[in-house]
Amino acid sequence: MPGIHMQDNLLESRYGVQEKPRNIIWNDTVALLLGHRSVRRYLPDALPDGAIETVVAAAQAASTSSNLHQWSVVAITDADLKTQVAAASRSAGGGNPYIEQAPVFLLWVADLSRNAALAAAQGKTPVVHDYLDALVMGTIDVALAAQNAAIAAESLGLGICYIGAMRNDARAVAELVGLPDFSYVAFGMVLGHPDARFASAIRPRPAQAFALHHNRYDAQRSLATVENYEAVFKNFRDEQEMKPTTWTAAAVSAATDTDYLGGRQDLRNMLEEAGFRLR
Amino acid sequence: MPGIHMQDNLLESRYGVQEKPRNIIWNDTVALLLGHRSVRRYLPDALPDGAIETVVAAAQAASTSSNLHQWSVVAITDADLKTQVAAASRSAGGGNPYIEQAPVFLLWVADLSRNAALAAAQGKTPVVHDYLDALVMGTIDVALAAQNAAIAAESLGLGICYIGAMRNDARAVAELVGLPDFSYVAFGMVLGHPDARFASAIRPRPAQAFALHHNRYDAQRSLATVENYEAVFKNFRDEQEMKPTTWTAAAVSAATDTDYLGGRQDLRNMLEEAGFRLR
Repeated sequence: MPGIHMQDNLLESRYGVQEKPRNIIWNDTVALLLGHRSVRRYLPDALPDGAIETVVAAAQAASTSSNLHQWSVVAITDADLKTQVAAASRSAGGGNPYIEQAPVFLLWVADLSRNAALAAAQGKTPVVHDYLDALVMGTIDVALAAQNAAIAAESLGLGICYIGAMRNDARAVAELVGLPDFSYVAFGMVLGHPDARFASAIRPRPAQAFALHHNRYDAQRSLATVENYEAVFKNFRDEQEMKPTTWTAAAVSAATDTDYLGGRQDLRNMLEEAGFRLR
Repeated sequence: MPGIHMQDNLLESRYGVQEKPRNIIWNDTVALLLGHRSVRRYLPDALPDGAIETVVAAAQAASTSSNLHQWSVVAITDADLKTQVAAASRSAGGGNPYIEQAPVFLLWVADLSRNAALAAAQGKTPVVHDYLDALVMGTIDVALAAQNAAIAAESLGLGICYIGAMRNDARAVAELVGLPDFSYVAFGMVLGHPDARFASAIRPRPAQAFALHHNRYDAQRSLATVENYEAVFKNFRDEQEMKPTTWTAAAVSAATDTDYLGGRQDLRNMLEEAGFRLR
C-alpha cells in the first residue's frame, strides 16, 4: 500500500491545482498505474532474463474479441534492424533516438492474417475482414494486449514508450519485418531500463470531468475543464524547460496541420495494399 | 509475491499442455494481470465509494498520443438507460444480460470532438481528423485507457467484461448518450462485483510462439502452435460444458460469416455520418 505522502504526490503530479479525485481507493497496483510516465532515456543494459516472456504472457492474458487472438508482437533486438525500423518512424519533426538506445523495440501488430490463412486453407474467403470493423477490432485487441505488457514491464522496474509514429511509414516497417497481408503495425513500444540520470516526470492530465461523463455526454462540462488544465500544463512545461505553448494551441495544431501526420496520411492506402478493404 | 502453487496454477490455466514460458518474473502485478478473466455474472451491489474515480484516474494515467487525450468514458448507472444501451448491443446471437446485472456500464469513446471544437472555435478546420489515422489514434488511445481501468478495477476485487458488440448499433448508442460528432463508442465495459457462485474460469491462450516473433514475422511458426492449442481449447470447453467446437472452426466462422458482425457492417457509414472521413 503506498504511503499517504506518495498518494498525495501522485495526485499532485497528475492534477496539480485542478480538482482532484478525493476518494481514490489505493493499493500498490493503483499506485503503479497512476505513476506511469513514458521513458525517453534508456541504459543500454540487456533486459533481465524472462522479461520478454513476462510481458508477452501479460499481453496474452488481456481480453481479446471473441477469443480470436488477432494480434502479434515482433520483438526487435537486432541492432541493425532496430536502426532501420527507427529510421522509418522519423518525420520532419525529428526522430526518437531512444528506440536505438533501448535493448528491445516491440512492434505491436493488429493481425487478422492467421485467421485469414486458416479460412483460405479451407477454401473460404475471409469476407468479414473486408469491413472497417475488422480493422477496429484488431486495433483494439492489440492495444489492450500492449497496455498489459506496459504495466507488466513497469512492475518489473522497466520503462516503456509508445511510438505511434511507427505508422508514419507503416509500409516500410511491414517490409522490414516481413508482415503478411491482413496485418499492420499499430504502434511500437520501446522497452528497457530507464536511465535514472534523466528520469522523466509524470505528465499532468485534465481534471476527471474532462473525460468522465455520467449517463449523458456533456461537452460543455468537459470543455470547461480546459482552462484550469492550461495552468497545470504551463507549470509543467516551465518546470521541464520546454518551449512555451498552451495545450489548446498544441491540440488545435495537431488537428489542423497535416504535417502532424508525418506520413500517416497514407495509412489507408497502405492498409488497402495489405488486403484490408475498410468497407 | 504469489506463491509457487499459484504461479503454477496461473500458467497451467493459461497454457495447459502447451509449451509454457519457463522464466516468468513474478510479482503481484504480474499475477494480477495473468489472472484476468472476464466476468459474466454480477451481484447487484453498488460499487464501493471511489471506485469510478479510481478506474478513471488509472485510465487517465495511460499513455495518450501526443498528449491529446482523445478519449472519453460515459458511466451509465441509470437503470433504464442501461437497459436501452444493452438492447442496442443485442444481435441475432443473443444479448449480454450481465450488462443489466452490474451496477455500472462504461462506454469507452474514441473522442476527437473536443479537439475539433477547439479548432472550430479558432475558425480552423480539423483536417487531420479527415484521415483514417485519426480514427486509429483515438481508438488506440481509448483502448489503452480502458485497459488501465480494467486492471485498476480487478485490483479492487471488481470484475469487468469488454463488450465489443456495443458497435453492433453504434449509432443508436451514440444517440442514447448524446455523443457529439467526431466521436464513437469503441466498446463497452461491464463493471461490478463478481457473483462468486458463478466464478468464471481463466481462458487458455495459445503458446507464446503464436503471438511472439523475433526480429522477423514467422507465419509458419505461429500457425504451427494451433494444433496444440486445439487440445487445450477442447479440454477447457469440455470442463465448462460448452458446445464442442474447435478454435479453428470458430476463427474461420468469425472470418467468413458476416452474421458474426451483428450489424457492425455498418460501422463505416455510422462513422462517416459522425464526421469521420477515413481518407
